[in-house]
Amino acid sequence: MSNKIPVGVLGATGAVGQKFVKLLENHPWFDLTEVAASDRSAGKRYEEATPWRQYTPIPEPVKNLEVKPCEPALDCKLVFSGLDSSVAGEVEEEFARAGYLVLSNSKNHRMDEDVPLLVPEINPDHLGLIETQRRNRKWSGAIVTNPNCSTIGLVMALAPIHYKFGVARVIVTTLQALSGAGYPGHAAIDMLGNVIPFIGGEESKVETEPLKIMGALEGDRIRFADFRISAHTNRVFVEDGHMECVSVELRKKASPEEVARALADFRSLPQELSLPTAPARPVIVTDERDRPQPRFDSGAGAGMSAVVGRIRECPVFDIRFVALSHNTIRGAAGAAILNAELMKARGYLD
Amino acid sequence: MSNKIPVGVLGATGAVGQKFVKLLENHPWFDLTEVAASDRSAGKRYEEATPWRQYTPIPEPVKNLEVKPCEPALDCKLVFSGLDSSVAGEVEEEFARAGYLVLSNSKNHRMDEDVPLLVPEINPDHLGLIETQRRNRKWSGAIVTNPNCSTIGLVMALAPIHYKFGVARVIVTTLQALSGAGYPGHAAIDMLGNVIPFIGGEESKVETEPLKIMGALEGDRIRFADFRISAHTNRVFVEDGHMECVSVELRKKASPEEVARALADFRSLPQELSLPTAPARPVIVTDERDRPQPRFDSGAGAGMSAVVGRIRECPVFDIRFVALSHNTIRGAAGAAILNAELMKARGYLD
Amino acid sequence: MSNKIPVGVLGATGAVGQKFVKLLENHPWFDLTEVAASDRSAGKRYEEATPWRQYTPIPEPVKNLEVKPCEPALDCKLVFSGLDSSVAGEVEEEFARAGYLVLSNSKNHRMDEDVPLLVPEINPDHLGLIETQRRNRKWSGAIVTNPNCSTIGLVMALAPIHYKFGVARVIVTTLQALSGAGYPGHAAIDMLGNVIPFIGGEESKVETEPLKIMGALEGDRIRFADFRISAHTNRVFVEDGHMECVSVELRKKASPEEVARALADFRSLPQELSLPTAPARPVIVTDERDRPQPRFDSGAGAGMSAVVGRIRECPVFDIRFVALSHNTIRGAAGAAILNAELMKARGYLD
Amino acid sequence: MSNKIPVGVLGATGAVGQKFVKLLENHPWFDLTEVAASDRSAGKRYEEATPWRQYTPIPEPVKNLEVKPCEPALDCKLVFSGLDSSVAGEVEEEFARAGYLVLSNSKNHRMDEDVPLLVPEINPDHLGLIETQRRNRKWSGAIVTNPNCSTIGLVMALAPIHYKFGVARVIVTTLQALSGAGYPGHAAIDMLGNVIPFIGGEESKVETEPLKIMGALEGDRIRFADFRISAHTNRVFVEDGHMECVSVELRKKASPEEVARALADFRSLPQELSLPTAPARPVIVTDERDRPQPRFDSGAGAGMSAVVGRIRECPVFDIRFVALSHNTIRGAAGAAILNAELMKARGYLD
Repeated sequence: MSNKIPVGVLGATGAVGQKFVKLLENHPWFDLTEVAASDRSAGKRYEEATPWRQYTPIPEPVKNLEVKPCEPALDCKLVFSGLDSSVAGEVEEEFARAGYLVLSNSKNHRMDEDVPLLVPEINPDHLGLIETQRRNRKWSGAIVTNPNCSTIGLVMALAPIHYKFGVARVIVTTLQALSGAGYPGHAAIDMLGNVIPFIGGEESKVETEPLKIMGALEGDRIRFADFRISAHTNRVFVEDGHMECVSVELRKKASPEEVARALADFRSLPQELSLPTAPARPVIVTDERDRPQPRFDSGAGAGMSAVVGRIRECPVFDIRFVALSHNTIRGAAGAAILNAELMKARGYLD
Repeated sequence: MSNKIPVGVLGATGAVGQKFVKLLENHPWFDLTEVAASDRSAGKRYEEATPWRQYTPIPEPVKNLEVKPCEPALDCKLVFSGLDSSVAGEVEEEFARAGYLVLSNSKNHRMDEDVPLLVPEINPDHLGLIETQRRNRKWSGAIVTNPNCSTIGLVMALAPIHYKFGVARVIVTTLQALSGAGYPGHAAIDMLGNVIPFIGGEESKVETEPLKIMGALEGDRIRFADFRISAHTNRVFVEDGHMECVSVELRKKASPEEVARALADFRSLPQELSLPTAPARPVIVTDERDRPQPRFDSGAGAGMSAVVGRIRECPVFDIRFVALSHNTIRGAAGAAILNAELMKARGYLD
Repeated sequence: MSNKIPVGVLGATGAVGQKFVKLLENHPWFDLTEVAASDRSAGKRYEEATPWRQYTPIPEPVKNLEVKPCEPALDCKLVFSGLDSSVAGEVEEEFARAGYLVLSNSKNHRMDEDVPLLVPEINPDHLGLIETQRRNRKWSGAIVTNPNCSTIGLVMALAPIHYKFGVARVIVTTLQALSGAGYPGHAAIDMLGNVIPFIGGEESKVETEPLKIMGALEGDRIRFADFRISAHTNRVFVEDGHMECVSVELRKKASPEEVARALADFRSLPQELSLPTAPARPVIVTDERDRPQPRFDSGAGAGMSAVVGRIRECPVFDIRFVALSHNTIRGAAGAAILNAELMKARGYLD
Repeated sequence: MSNKIPVGVLGATGAVGQKFVKLLENHPWFDLTEVAASDRSAGKRYEEATPWRQYTPIPEPVKNLEVKPCEPALDCKLVFSGLDSSVAGEVEEEFARAGYLVLSNSKNHRMDEDVPLLVPEINPDHLGLIETQRRNRKWSGAIVTNPNCSTIGLVMALAPIHYKFGVARVIVTTLQALSGAGYPGHAAIDMLGNVIPFIGGEESKVETEPLKIMGALEGDRIRFADFRISAHTNRVFVEDGHMECVSVELRKKASPEEVARALADFRSLPQELSLPTAPARPVIVTDERDRPQPRFDSGAGAGMSAVVGRIRECPVFDIRFVALSHNTIRGAAGAAILNAELMKARGYLD
């Protein structure tokens, strides 16, 4: 019998849920034993209920799991939530109230004052908010969130720079992949030879989430990082991998070489703890003149590394570069799993 | 017999040259009577020599023209140059020396001190440089250039704002069409589900050309506009139409509505003179939340208008928006033709 | 005041309906005065009710038309139906019963014994079925249909061959455009670097409709053409234009040159009558080795011609070739308009 | 020290050569110790000389190999040839003459009477031709070829059917991936929303190679299989995976179910011998109505299986279906490696 920790996935039949199922296959610590979804799917076998769209088959042990309703009666202590934001808010609260650790990919609670918006390489100490959260809400469980798929590539590139040189202002333009829009997402005929310069609600996320993530935990609250971000978000005809063109004003001047070194050398707690899903290098710096490119680089570090290239001086601010990260792995399911691993390592699952 | 002015096209068999041939079909003032190209093509009929790739057929009167070598022995006074920059520099000089007006789309002479980098709506007075050019170089003809395909959309959007509110700093990210890379350009397999964050030499053009275009003619030289631009340039899987995400710091604060009005109301000399290729509205402002889009909007104003949308406040600078313009019409052949029309209207062809 | 014949469009806000609205702009005989759609749209102005997706703007006179419900109370005698097949069957019957001529693009009545499946170049005499239809159904109006978008390119290429050499067997594989799937149709992420070898219900249409179209009107019924077709249908990442690879067994041997001549020389009644929407050449034969191609050739004859290329011997049957036709013009709205023009010329609108 | 058999790759820096390098990484029997390429590359380290375009990095042991010229002075007994057909013919002969076993992916010698065109699952006995080849040509080595990338999917689907029911006639239309055109291959702008109905020289390969492959070795020659194939070949915007729509006339009638069973049950010598690169199932039968699809199915069996779907009756012939196989693995480098494994198992490397 497995000594692994049993875990569940909420919204397991959807796009993010499928990614959780796939990424949890053969996980060394976690054993996926519970899959929950909407009432329409509940009662069916997972294989029946799921319009599976990954390139590898449904993991054998999951195929025949019975899909349960999204109610806090699952036989596990930790659940990953790939629920749609239209329902995630309430359901996740119910689970946390009932004592579950909820690792949420949804936007609903990300900016709540007492909910960690966790990136293990950047703000592992924000887990300290859980105590506040439990006290505030009288919960025995907790909600821990990961950032939006377009936020993550930006913060992973900005954090090492911010810590070393101080970030004053950022202007970023994203070129985001189709998979970020869920399924079915955009119509093929709309994307044929086209680019769509609008993603609903996205720009405000990119402009606010990084400030919380890079903020400082002071007592029972986060003091947000003190700089400004302006984001232009675009959808392009790419499968996976959000690319971002970033110009940064620094508080302390630094050359492109110094910035490159700060990024390439960046290691943090997940690497020290050798968390299973942690990439060896959180940020991979490339000096090829036309990289990173989504098709070639979004899989770097098994989709958990950000790739940064074209680091050069900015004639308006100080530094500019191109960052890329995998939007459904580091930007969604993989992020939540890494968060869970950090929590396990920190004793939250004991 | 035609009363039109006979004109020629240099590099007539290439991608830009073909666009000249196409756009000059049925031109009310100009009659395309001379086509010139490399020695390899010279002597052949145009139809034979040209791997025609436009959606409409080769104009009947051009089909059977004999392709001439690119030497200043053409029977016309004005030539449009779609020559590749590897040869354009010298050939264009020869023609100008020999008395031709050379309307050049090539980069070679754009930044020469005594060569106009002309956008008729913005700096028609820069034609005044011709006198200096002729004096300096002892030419009877002249070279007049149009801006790079990624510069034009930016300056058309910035100029009306600059004149009204003053531009202090600009950060722009481009998403540029395949046709801007010439033919054959990128390999299909490189662009499949991909984006390439690098275009050789492009960023410096976008960062300098606008400052000359919006500069002031003072005596026999241009005083460049006094602001800074930072450009990130990207290639996307789009046929025609360069899209640009722009953040602007203004000298005088203005609301998005004021900026929108300045852009929508912008009219200039080509409109007053009713030049044949001038669009009724140089800048078309859209308030649909997800426009402009290359596939739907690059043909606006027969490819001669810039379309600007998503005008909104920028949390870092003052204003941000998305601009789009047709890279092979307003950004190349159409621009040169409009320049020629202005010169005709100003008496340079008398 | 206009002397044109007032006409209406049913399902005017949908994809096919929009194409009708666009193609009827400036029609020399017809004046679009009535637009009807679902109850959800009824009562609104056309511009408000319609998610317009054509490259040219809504025709000015149509913008402000009030959308009516799809009930036979429209002030016109002829209606074009772009209704979805889920509702077309019954609604079209109501209109025909009420005395309207219904030019339908829907599949519902195409194979009805007393309904013409009309291609004016091929079977104009099938209009004779209208008398039978009226008698059978006690209607004062009539329903006249045009073929499916993947049928039309095939029959336009086969008919001239059949008439001259006799077709015995046909195997055809289609590569069909996205616009044939309606809007939104396929998800972008499903079509990225992909091809889908299945289109629901399509193969049986391609295998049966041509036999009715090329059938002979005998008394009050059609004797179907006596040959067999096998169709493989595929969806590809193309905007407009269905391409078909066709192998044909002939009853009377013919060389590729003879077949090419039969196709290129083919002219018929619409050309004799100079119907406004009739292309000068119903079939355009190309001898370029890699054409027709959807992006370059689907607009031939303003979208009303079929383009046939690569006519060569078939080592299994006798002749093989590639045919292309515009699926939303000759394969939908344009076809119905040409049908209406034939009916007008034949006195059905007097 | 490795007990593996040292092998070399000719044309190692090109598209097919890179695939050999990648697929030979960690091969249980073969050790890639020699890389050879054009004189331009010779003398450089492999990493320097190669514009590497695979998704995984260059295998560590290969990075620093010195690229040798393509001359028969390599320290190994077996070479894989990914040479371009413009040079492959002669170079491969030189190596064979000098005693090397040459596993060639090039077309030059495929149809030579005394050269095996080998598919281990179909005609392993054709290796018997080597004796004839050596006698005829006085070579101590030998050339063994694998089929063209568009042939392989067809023969893998046809062979089990032919053996059981007899194939009389075949009409096939291909939808082929970009990677089959080499690098750079097609221009992106030519493939945007487009399909190209022509691939130079391809149709004759698809029409003849299968007849040799399924032919019978009689004495020292192959008696070709006795049926006819007609092929229409098309290029589509797909990365990897050639799809084929196939209609088959059988000598002995069979239902779709019987055909499906014959395909699904097909196993052969490579499976019996457990050759390292042999897929468990040479042909995978899918009954999903819209599969196989290139993006989801070309990786089946690590790119070594053909996937066949939509097996159904053909109204013109007897049976029709859709086949898919990976064009650069089973259709090129993987095929040659499997051939080499069969030769090793058969003692040719002792």
